[in-house]
Amino acid sequence: MNKINVGIIGVGRMGRIHLDNLVLKFPEVNVVAISDVLESSKSLAEQYNVPNFYTDYRDLISNPDVEAVVICSPTDRHAENILAAVTAGKQVFCEKPMDLSLETVQELEDIIEASGVKFMLGFNRRFDPNFKKIKSLINEGKVGEPHIVKITSRDPAPPPVSYIKSSGGMFVDMTIHDFDMARFMAGSEVKQVFAVGKNLVDPEIGKAGDIDTAVITLTFENGCIATIDNSRQAVYGYDQRVEVFGSAGMAGTTNNTPDNHYYYDKNGQSGPLPLNFFMDRYIDSYYNEMREFIDCLNKNEKPNVGAKDGMVSLAIGIAANISMKENRVVALEEITEKNVSVSS
Amino acid sequence: MNKINVGIIGVGRMGRIHLDNLVLKFPEVNVVAISDVLESSKSLAEQYNVPNFYTDYRDLISNPDVEAVVICSPTDRHAENILAAVTAGKQVFCEKPMDLSLETVQELEDIIEASGVKFMLGFNRRFDPNFKKIKSLINEGKVGEPHIVKITSRDPAPPPVSYIKSSGGMFVDMTIHDFDMARFMAGSEVKQVFAVGKNLVDPEIGKAGDIDTAVITLTFENGCIATIDNSRQAVYGYDQRVEVFGSAGMAGTTNNTPDNHYYYDKNGQSGPLPLNFFMDRYIDSYYNEMREFIDCLNKNEKPNVGAKDGMVSLAIGIAANISMKENRVVALEEITEKNVSVSS
Amino acid sequence: MNKINVGIIGVGRMGRIHLDNLVLKFPEVNVVAISDVLESSKSLAEQYNVPNFYTDYRDLISNPDVEAVVICSPTDRHAENILAAVTAGKQVFCEKPMDLSLETVQELEDIIEASGVKFMLGFNRRFDPNFKKIKSLINEGKVGEPHIVKITSRDPAPPPVSYIKSSGGMFVDMTIHDFDMARFMAGSEVKQVFAVGKNLVDPEIGKAGDIDTAVITLTFENGCIATIDNSRQAVYGYDQRVEVFGSAGMAGTTNNTPDNHYYYDKNGQSGPLPLNFFMDRYIDSYYNEMREFIDCLNKNEKPNVGAKDGMVSLAIGIAANISMKENRVVALEEITEKNVSVSS
Amino acid sequence: MNKINVGIIGVGRMGRIHLDNLVLKFPEVNVVAISDVLESSKSLAEQYNVPNFYTDYRDLISNPDVEAVVICSPTDRHAENILAAVTAGKQVFCEKPMDLSLETVQELEDIIEASGVKFMLGFNRRFDPNFKKIKSLINEGKVGEPHIVKITSRDPAPPPVSYIKSSGGMFVDMTIHDFDMARFMAGSEVKQVFAVGKNLVDPEIGKAGDIDTAVITLTFENGCIATIDNSRQAVYGYDQRVEVFGSAGMAGTTNNTPDNHYYYDKNGQSGPLPLNFFMDRYIDSYYNEMREFIDCLNKNEKPNVGAKDGMVSLAIGIAANISMKENRVVALEEITEKNVSVSS
Repeated sequence: MNKINVGIIGVGRMGRIHLDNLVLKFPEVNVVAISDVLESSKSLAEQYNVPNFYTDYRDLISNPDVEAVVICSPTDRHAENILAAVTAGKQVFCEKPMDLSLETVQELEDIIEASGVKFMLGFNRRFDPNFKKIKSLINEGKVGEPHIVKITSRDPAPPPVSYIKSSGGMFVDMTIHDFDMARFMAGSEVKQVFAVGKNLVDPEIGKAGDIDTAVITLTFENGCIATIDNSRQAVYGYDQRVEVFGSAGMAGTTNNTPDNHYYYDKNGQSGPLPLNFFMDRYIDSYYNEMREFIDCLNKNEKPNVGAKDGMVSLAIGIAANISMKENRVVALEEITEKNVSVSS
Repeated sequence: MNKINVGIIGVGRMGRIHLDNLVLKFPEVNVVAISDVLESSKSLAEQYNVPNFYTDYRDLISNPDVEAVVICSPTDRHAENILAAVTAGKQVFCEKPMDLSLETVQELEDIIEASGVKFMLGFNRRFDPNFKKIKSLINEGKVGEPHIVKITSRDPAPPPVSYIKSSGGMFVDMTIHDFDMARFMAGSEVKQVFAVGKNLVDPEIGKAGDIDTAVITLTFENGCIATIDNSRQAVYGYDQRVEVFGSAGMAGTTNNTPDNHYYYDKNGQSGPLPLNFFMDRYIDSYYNEMREFIDCLNKNEKPNVGAKDGMVSLAIGIAANISMKENRVVALEEITEKNVSVSS
Repeated sequence: MNKINVGIIGVGRMGRIHLDNLVLKFPEVNVVAISDVLESSKSLAEQYNVPNFYTDYRDLISNPDVEAVVICSPTDRHAENILAAVTAGKQVFCEKPMDLSLETVQELEDIIEASGVKFMLGFNRRFDPNFKKIKSLINEGKVGEPHIVKITSRDPAPPPVSYIKSSGGMFVDMTIHDFDMARFMAGSEVKQVFAVGKNLVDPEIGKAGDIDTAVITLTFENGCIATIDNSRQAVYGYDQRVEVFGSAGMAGTTNNTPDNHYYYDKNGQSGPLPLNFFMDRYIDSYYNEMREFIDCLNKNEKPNVGAKDGMVSLAIGIAANISMKENRVVALEEITEKNVSVSS
Repeated sequence: MNKINVGIIGVGRMGRIHLDNLVLKFPEVNVVAISDVLESSKSLAEQYNVPNFYTDYRDLISNPDVEAVVICSPTDRHAENILAAVTAGKQVFCEKPMDLSLETVQELEDIIEASGVKFMLGFNRRFDPNFKKIKSLINEGKVGEPHIVKITSRDPAPPPVSYIKSSGGMFVDMTIHDFDMARFMAGSEVKQVFAVGKNLVDPEIGKAGDIDTAVITLTFENGCIATIDNSRQAVYGYDQRVEVFGSAGMAGTTNNTPDNHYYYDKNGQSGPLPLNFFMDRYIDSYYNEMREFIDCLNKNEKPNVGAKDGMVSLAIGIAANISMKENRVVALEEITEKNVSVSS
């Protein structure tokens, strides 16, 4: 077997997950290079026996041994990293979002498309065993035509306000996953968006110009309607559920829990809470998405989550922001035609 | 104990439920009169040992023995029945809706308020043991401030198209229960409404000018957001669920089922479907609401579901219709100020 | 329709349940007579419009209008009541047990068999919707050959010690239901019994010569093995579960609860406890068993729970007592051949 | 940090699980040697960068670098391996059972005790997150005094008959896990054993002198009673459940499943089956038990599952065999005094 030589740009929280998976669970992969702006990350390269470490990602891309690049840098460096990697003819896996400017994302999409390189965007939730199971039930026709998609997506606690200020807003930072999930489940494209957002959890979030609670309604070209509800703070943990109702049946999933115990006493029946955060809940999905990327490289196939998915989900996020602020329905084509960016 | 003398106007499907409960389960009540336009209903009076039967409801109201009237006639007779009963100084329980014209409902509300009679509207779902339990958890502070209310309300099969034509539309005929439930759970009044409705189940329903699938977003004065999803046809049965998410926790209920079995074989795990329709699912709620009405009469207290609740839920239904048709957000005060009726 | 004229002997707790059901839910039945040793029970007869009340059950049996007798007297009067009713040619429904002496039960069984009257014993749990569902899955072949039957049967609190002293012991008083259930589910007859009993809940029960905690193993002629676990005190309520494992699958049921709520907060997930006692849990089964009895009378069919079922379950109870006391396996034929009574 | 140098004897199915965990997930461990009778296993050593490979386990034990030995050889080599490792002063982790002869196990226990080495036996299920959670609820006093322990332990399919012939019988091969679990949950020692075993799944198993279906009752010194039910073939998968009922409450767990989906259509509600076999179900427990062993070495503490646990569980297995064959209750001291071996 010819091993695939991979380089990883950025080994923060997400980069380490991918590094660990690629080194330990992908015998067909050689991680040959790591780059990170922090010199201290060099120890990670040593720990995982990665032969090359750079503080400048351009050195990693210049390394002719590197065939595929996994981009885990901060969001505001993604566009630059993608452009360099694609231009150098590398295959690319990139954490979402590609960028917060829709125009930039569309430009990147065109460049990627023209280049012919494989490009996969890290919408990992599509690879979660629960959501994959729902999707496979849909694909088998068990749900029939999807009529209503219900997504509940709530974080256990809000991020620091400092983070929120530069996040692009909850719709683009957090709900963007749910927008992709709604498209994935509906099997159709969004026509219009209506969003209600509130600041109910922490007034500091409101002062920073963001919301922490929202309900979004999406209508799809095939007639399906999706309702997404978000909160930045579910005191009982990370609440991640999807339910799809259709002409032939309904498929959904409950949350994952650390164990399956039940307990009864004179006060009532009790049981476990959901797994507390995305590192636990989605641990399998990170492996599965990387498996998809590597398999696509090996089989010379196009990954099924690409730049366009990033572009559309970003557009929906931008539409949701406008809908909320102007308290009106926003047609998606309003956004995609105008190339509105998040900050507008 | 002084027994309360009750008369029942209309002994169709709902009238029979109340008749049976009042005769068999309310030792403190005497059902002294029944009226029904069908002469053949006289046999019901005989079967239940009810001494007086009339084909004209005015005879029932004229009977001085009748202290309280239970109105179960067709919707288009409710206003007339209420007016006559209230004018005659009878206590009144009325099946919902009071009327399909908001103006009429508001007039009735004023008359009832001025009369000082007890008036209770049959929003029976508030008395369902599941939903009562959620409400009591909210009242105990277990949920904290309500942030998101999720209501799933789906019928097992659509009514005949002939019925749909005169129903006032799905929002007023079916969703009106969910509007009341959302208000009950949010503990606040609706500010604005956004509704998406589709005809996905049966083209005949669309031809009759109605929809069969919908998602409605309500925003409340206290900041709470509600999302309601409806379908006229859930192939797996009558799906009636409510979930309330708040600052301190989340409370919800699953469906009721005919039994609690589970079964495992090599093909998977299976279990029971929801109870199939409202007569089974809400059987306890019909008893409980009548218990509330009778207890209020005995304790000389005002029932906690009155004419105003009927008025507001109808207004929300009308707003939902306009929102859907005009594809825009509708503030509730738009409706309540204009006294728009369903057919407008 | 010719109505069936029924007389009820004994209107204590169980008698009232049957009285209420027969009067209110069986239009094809006339309850024509009640007998009870307490003169004060006459008011019940009046309340339900039953024309005849006697303090001596023999007067009820002598009444030629009475076609069927429902025996709800104390256990030590059952044999006498049955004998008189059968001798008079009445159809008989009798609460269990028929008697605590196996010899007496066998004599009654012979007399009933010879008389040709319909006789049904009140093993109501066979008519519980949950257990009926399991049985119907077995009958449909979904479970295959039954291999293991698991019965958990625990009371919420022990009865008064005064009651326990005259109860015949836990196996005959409480587990006898489970013995019948095990036979019902295994679809076979018991060959041998092994019982372990402990006094763990209340030392007063031990002083009264009884146990409050037990595990019993039954082996059946068809190879099936049943394990029953009992406690007189489950602090979380009335725990009544059955699970049947077989060559083709497994069927079981969870407990019934007053509602189907769930609640999540930072401390965990919680939900409802089981319904607290048999009056609530088995309310449907009392109706269903009476429905079976009345239907059998109308269709001139033999009820499917008869004197033999009472005899066999009593024999198993006696075997369990001997097994526990002598700490050894007891073959059921040891008991049935010797006609051992409970007190031996 | 001083790394602990570990050698692994036997790299079959279980040895590979431990090898993989130790190399990839235990940064404080160096796996310095592997031995396996198959020369072909050398490639595993190379794959995991283990510097020493031997076909003779004595060479591994002679290697002065090896501080701790993980024994994963076939059962009939365990005693020899343990003896050699303990004699050489190595710390020992050994897969269960230590041996099928109770006399041998007792001799080993004495030798280990005298030697002062750390010895841990691989009763991995104690480290399963579900069962650990039950145990922790017991330890917190949430269950009170344990009264009844229910263990359901069923394999998805029987092993080959050739395996069964040399397995020592189902009680020693399969139920031995459940015996340990019962002791773990009851928190007490077994006094007596009663076992019923049947050959219901496959006649070939019966011809080989073994059973495939059983119910075992254990009574404990503290009054607790345990009931274990086993089958070699649950068509719906690997069924592993434990429930503990006590004076203050009940704790139990359902099975683990590959996902948490639910599906409803007109035919019913369905969901996932249990994870299919022990490699999936108990994957976490293998890591957790090794974590316990390594932590004990680092902290110089005695592991909480030692030779005595192996001895007692084997004795219970032997008692169960005698109980079944002689159809009688067997006191455990009958076995421990006589040093009966499995084959007797």
